[in-house]
Amino acid sequence: MKAHTIEQAVRYAETDRMKVVHHSTYLLWFEIGRMGLLAAAGFPYDQLEASGTLFPVVVFACRLNDSADFGDTVTIETRIANLRSRSVEFSYKILKGAKVIATGMTRHIAADASLKAKRLPDDLLGALAVYVVANSES
Amino acid sequence: MKAHTIEQAVRYAETDRMKVVHHSTYLLWFEIGRMGLLAAAGFPYDQLEASGTLFPVVVFACRLNDSADFGDTVTIETRIANLRSRSVEFSYKILKGAKVIATGMTRHIAADASLKAKRLPDDLLGALAVYVVANSES
Amino acid sequence: MKAHTIEQAVRYAETDRMKVVHHSTYLLWFEIGRMGLLAAAGFPYDQLEASGTLFPVVVFACRLNDSADFGDTVTIETRIANLRSRSVEFSYKILKGAKVIATGMTRHIAADASLKAKRLPDDLLGALAVYVVANSES
Amino acid sequence: MKAHTIEQAVRYAETDRMKVVHHSTYLLWFEIGRMGLLAAAGFPYDQLEASGTLFPVVVFACRLNDSADFGDTVTIETRIANLRSRSVEFSYKILKGAKVIATGMTRHIAADASLKAKRLPDDLLGALAVYVVANSES
Repeated sequence: MKAHTIEQAVRYAETDRMKVVHHSTYLLWFEIGRMGLLAAAGFPYDQLEASGTLFPVVVFACRLNDSADFGDTVTIETRIANLRSRSVEFSYKILKGAKVIATGMTRHIAADASLKAKRLPDDLLGALAVYVVANSES
Repeated sequence: MKAHTIEQAVRYAETDRMKVVHHSTYLLWFEIGRMGLLAAAGFPYDQLEASGTLFPVVVFACRLNDSADFGDTVTIETRIANLRSRSVEFSYKILKGAKVIATGMTRHIAADASLKAKRLPDDLLGALAVYVVANSES
Repeated sequence: MKAHTIEQAVRYAETDRMKVVHHSTYLLWFEIGRMGLLAAAGFPYDQLEASGTLFPVVVFACRLNDSADFGDTVTIETRIANLRSRSVEFSYKILKGAKVIATGMTRHIAADASLKAKRLPDDLLGALAVYVVANSES
Repeated sequence: MKAHTIEQAVRYAETDRMKVVHHSTYLLWFEIGRMGLLAAAGFPYDQLEASGTLFPVVVFACRLNDSADFGDTVTIETRIANLRSRSVEFSYKILKGAKVIATGMTRHIAADASLKAKRLPDDLLGALAVYVVANSES
């Protein structure tokens, strides 16, 4: 039920000629949020990879309600929407001030260094459980 | 029912330390396919923007079935899944050889230069109709 | 002689299959440092652009002495190497801990919204002067 | 003295809010040219890496004389400016039609998979020699 929260200043290079942030940037922000949640849970992703657990993305989705531009700082809220023995789904909100400008999700399988599916280590499953969204939340 | 097809060599910079193409790259490939379809339909997107019709992204989604790496060339197939007076939804397949490694979609509203929603111009609607996926296709 | 300093965590997407940060990322870090210096000098770049002064890049260069990887946090040090009435040259150091892993520079002309060369506004010239590297420094 | 030439359409995502291609994109174009030259010389870079020869970047530089925008197709000309037993320097020209809009260079050491410096394999040295710029050319 806990969320991980981190701020990120829009980079100039992330904007496009429409004078808004390019939509692919939202995936980079989701990734920053996801990495932040894993580190806060005690499992920094570089150490996870070093110990042989990778999280390749198998599904991603995003709905954009508003845009961001250079000069804005966004807040990235990350939760876990679904946690299974072999996969994990993160959910994200991107806020500009109090306004949610985008929501999204990414689903990952656990894999070894050769990208073969495996179970999530038990201690990681336990540490992530606290971030799982309850049914009554969104 | 027509699809637009274009090939793209994987760029080295598009890979990540997992030794596969970073998932955000698929959105860039979708964009290349979408721009190619619009140009093939007689409405190159740079001219569309110049004439006051922009296509900001409001939803995107992607499912990855396999990975790509530097040295691969992928094929981007683009169709129109849904065409309305004020929005258009593109669907994409990314192939490596004969294998579909990813499928996805992006939904766009038509907007003017200040990103305010507008109707798609009638001639554009007509030109895009031929790319709309029939119900029996996927 | 003052330097602007800001930290930046390496993003996973910034790495490549060589398991180091792709060299193009250094330009994005330089940009973050440059924008930070301008903001610290009282001229946030989004406001500069809004007021009609743009800084398009005309030259960039970088020497890499070591690499960075996901899991690292780098420090970006930015100074002004040369300040003229119509152009400005920034110099950068990228550090990993105490070690300088890269040095670089970017030269910019001042331009109006149509990218035509112009003079830097006098108040901006004054505010930037304090960041100019003295001859005896590097 | 031979040059390798390849065309590349500007990607929408490569533009920024200045309505030109972001300067970091030139490094990606240089990389496409470099990879094309290596493949044309009979040493595709993915195979080079697989055989244990990597080309990490140690220096890069670029001068921009004009800009490119979405809708443009650029030509990337790549030559070898300097070829030594342990390093190679590529030079690049980016053209928009007949106009050179940017020139640049990258210097690389030869390294093994752990990024330790090594000699370039003799057959590679021989194959690259034909692309070395003569003194009287630029």
